[in-house]
Amino acid sequence: MTALANFQQQMIPAVEEAMQAVVDRARSQGCTELHTMLTYHLGWSGEGAGPAARGKRVRPLLVLLSTAAAGGEWHRAVPAAAAVELLHNFSLIHDDIEDHGETRRGRPTVWTKWGVPLAINGGDALFALANIAMLELYPPVDVETTLIATRILLQTVLRLTQGQHLDISYEARENVSVDDYWRMVEGKTAALLAASTELGAVLAKAEESTRRAYHEFGRMLGLAFQAWDDYLGIWGDAALTGKSTTGDLMERKKTLPVVYGLAQEGEFARRWHAGEPHTPEEVPALAHALETDGAKAYTQAVAARLTSQALAALEQAQPQGDAGQALRTLAERLLQRQN
Amino acid sequence: MTALANFQQQMIPAVEEAMQAVVDRARSQGCTELHTMLTYHLGWSGEGAGPAARGKRVRPLLVLLSTAAAGGEWHRAVPAAAAVELLHNFSLIHDDIEDHGETRRGRPTVWTKWGVPLAINGGDALFALANIAMLELYPPVDVETTLIATRILLQTVLRLTQGQHLDISYEARENVSVDDYWRMVEGKTAALLAASTELGAVLAKAEESTRRAYHEFGRMLGLAFQAWDDYLGIWGDAALTGKSTTGDLMERKKTLPVVYGLAQEGEFARRWHAGEPHTPEEVPALAHALETDGAKAYTQAVAARLTSQALAALEQAQPQGDAGQALRTLAERLLQRQN
Repeated sequence: MTALANFQQQMIPAVEEAMQAVVDRARSQGCTELHTMLTYHLGWSGEGAGPAARGKRVRPLLVLLSTAAAGGEWHRAVPAAAAVELLHNFSLIHDDIEDHGETRRGRPTVWTKWGVPLAINGGDALFALANIAMLELYPPVDVETTLIATRILLQTVLRLTQGQHLDISYEARENVSVDDYWRMVEGKTAALLAASTELGAVLAKAEESTRRAYHEFGRMLGLAFQAWDDYLGIWGDAALTGKSTTGDLMERKKTLPVVYGLAQEGEFARRWHAGEPHTPEEVPALAHALETDGAKAYTQAVAARLTSQALAALEQAQPQGDAGQALRTLAERLLQRQN
Repeated sequence: MTALANFQQQMIPAVEEAMQAVVDRARSQGCTELHTMLTYHLGWSGEGAGPAARGKRVRPLLVLLSTAAAGGEWHRAVPAAAAVELLHNFSLIHDDIEDHGETRRGRPTVWTKWGVPLAINGGDALFALANIAMLELYPPVDVETTLIATRILLQTVLRLTQGQHLDISYEARENVSVDDYWRMVEGKTAALLAASTELGAVLAKAEESTRRAYHEFGRMLGLAFQAWDDYLGIWGDAALTGKSTTGDLMERKKTLPVVYGLAQEGEFARRWHAGEPHTPEEVPALAHALETDGAKAYTQAVAARLTSQALAALEQAQPQGDAGQALRTLAERLLQRQN
């Protein structure tokens, strides 16, 4: 068994238990439905509940592995890991409303089951619970460190909302540059991964320079992950990704290959501006034009460069022991995945 | 000048300044619109900006007056007052989406100006900022007290979302009892007022029994306020309230007179069940049936009893000095208002 698999087997159940204990606070006399919505969304109840409905729990693993790799005791960081995962799931409930996403992890989204008003409100409850989870670090974690961790989480939400604001705005904008794209990804994807790894260093009471290195590792991991995700969204193997590779182009998402392709003002840009919406039949020609205009090679090169930078950033942080090895394995797996 | 007016003149500008400093964090490179949305909602920018667009800032006043009346230094509590008002305003942004409210304080709501997706996201940003404001109590407030205050705020959000969940659910339910109604109001109205007065006592480092008394005062103030608000929504003077007294009945809101009236199974219940939606012409007859069935006298009696209880709860807390006097004036004004 790899070091990662060994840690996963211990850490994931501890995080699930901590999340469930916090989410149970949403129960109240005369109102069980709010709690039901949240346990459904978290993959614990309702049709299709189970590991597949829960996602990979990458963020809490990053918190706990970073804590251990930075010399701390991961058990003490479990409330922070639970907080990060609850926060991620709050943002998914709201994102699904904002993006009109009807399914997530193969199940109907919260808003399609309970309607938009209750789903907005349920997301708000989960946001509060994420922060409540973080405050439970203390005790045994000291109160100063608990406050610092809570501030990191809240500032991350602000970054998330800035990124999400840009993402929503870009839908209606034609002139989105590669710089605009990265500004959005910094908030939408990188901020929470950076917070996850930084929280590990903070809870291990690492020095400021180590804390910065862990932050940078999480951030670069997020940027690299997003570049590969955009790549796979067009040129991935649909059989492996489990989602259609025509989706991103049909939905006219402003992904990295698309914003790069548009800037080339070639065949892809001409086709893109000519028709909306694109039909499934048009997608192969669009993808081919993107490749001809250099966007496939560009995205691959950028993703490969960011992957190297993320792995180098991890070495900068000098992760220790089995947890350090597990962190390397996790990063490599996230960045070399085919799905 | 009354003690209340004197405090207001000092406290309100201090709170506005603290709120603005925190909200400025929503600005980021390449994204000014998120900040613009929030300053618009808070009544600081855009068409119709000014004191009338800001609301009465009752909650921060309650925090600061409670701090002073419990023997503390109100200047140190300003971040908590700002936090409570920012939190209240976050909940308004989301409530307006959930209730399809098109105007607030005489101006178009955020979602009507920017659309639902950006409005949900802007509310989330304001929620984060409210908590960030609270963390700024420290220093000079000690870190333990800052953590307690932050926990109070977050648990209040959980109560708010429980109340809001019930409120949304009741729209589609016919059998809402008076008990159901109070369960909703405890969360939706009373929780944040209770948190405001309790925070004052916490920041004044008052004893546990005093803290409980301040909590109870805020809670009863909220219940009494809601009962009067429901009364005025049907029998108030439209010229004074600035809103139509036909609105609550036309929108079929489950207010206290309505849930009481339905339980009587008389003329009002018959008319209520007969037709939906009600036309403006039907409203006077509905209001008259409510009165005949005893709901007007009942609501008046309940509101008067809750008002006495709220004022008695305040005396239990033994509020001190000019701030104590100002707190009495504020409570009386909120509960004896005609608008």
